[in-house]
Amino acid sequence: MNEARIEADKDLPIVRITRDFAATPEQLYRAHTDPELFAQWVGPEAMTVHIDHWDARNGGSWRYVASRGTDEYRFRGCFHEVRPDRIVQTFSYEGEPDGVALETLIFEDLGDGRTRLHAQSLVDSFAGRDAWLKSGMEVGVNEGYAKLDALLTKGVI
Amino acid sequence: MNEARIEADKDLPIVRITRDFAATPEQLYRAHTDPELFAQWVGPEAMTVHIDHWDARNGGSWRYVASRGTDEYRFRGCFHEVRPDRIVQTFSYEGEPDGVALETLIFEDLGDGRTRLHAQSLVDSFAGRDAWLKSGMEVGVNEGYAKLDALLTKGVI
Repeated sequence: MNEARIEADKDLPIVRITRDFAATPEQLYRAHTDPELFAQWVGPEAMTVHIDHWDARNGGSWRYVASRGTDEYRFRGCFHEVRPDRIVQTFSYEGEPDGVALETLIFEDLGDGRTRLHAQSLVDSFAGRDAWLKSGMEVGVNEGYAKLDALLTKGVI
Repeated sequence: MNEARIEADKDLPIVRITRDFAATPEQLYRAHTDPELFAQWVGPEAMTVHIDHWDARNGGSWRYVASRGTDEYRFRGCFHEVRPDRIVQTFSYEGEPDGVALETLIFEDLGDGRTRLHAQSLVDSFAGRDAWLKSGMEVGVNEGYAKLDALLTKGVI
């Protein structure tokens, strides 16, 4: 399995995720901005994602519900910037609305149809950052990216 | 003059601004969410602010131009959350679009018609944070809040 590298910054309240894909930057951009595609891959294997609202442009916003049986988890944020090589957005879980992250996604073209995704999440406390890292978040990250790999292999994106 | 306290966090890439106002939380909320009021006080004395776009709600966005003579400075961001006691928004100067801050404003009711504003700006590097602190930003902060005091005294807000 192609696992994501998930790292805590030594000095900053940041988590950095790095993952290579057999995709062009344009394909990864679509996977992150087209709501029908995004809902098919984001999050853990067992979750179903329903997009409530999605407006992927500078100053737009988004909201989705991830559900497993009767459990529902709602997430929302706004898009500060949406451009082909970079997306900057806010992120919060509605169950803990005061914990807001500023996320930056960069699509680095490696050539030969491969792209490296750099995802940075900036928060305002080391304790919050470290609690998130210890929550088992790597399962959802890796299962989500494996679903994205499968969509790319199938030619859906 | 009632100067704002401007502090760099010791461990986090954060600037914190604290300032008391002779105003209720509701008045400070309006000063930060009503575009016609906001344009009258934000920024240095010598600047004129024109609001390009303003939609102060969860998932909305904003953009304004500050001008002095023929110099123009454009700023923009999105509103992650807008509620009576707390606003969370992104902030960037269009001349340096990759430097995005996550701002949190809290209106703390001190009673007797006084409110303490807590403004936190979180960025992703200490160098960027410290360059901003050394840029003379305190002039604009204090002149802006003095204009806000004057609007409150005049009963405009």
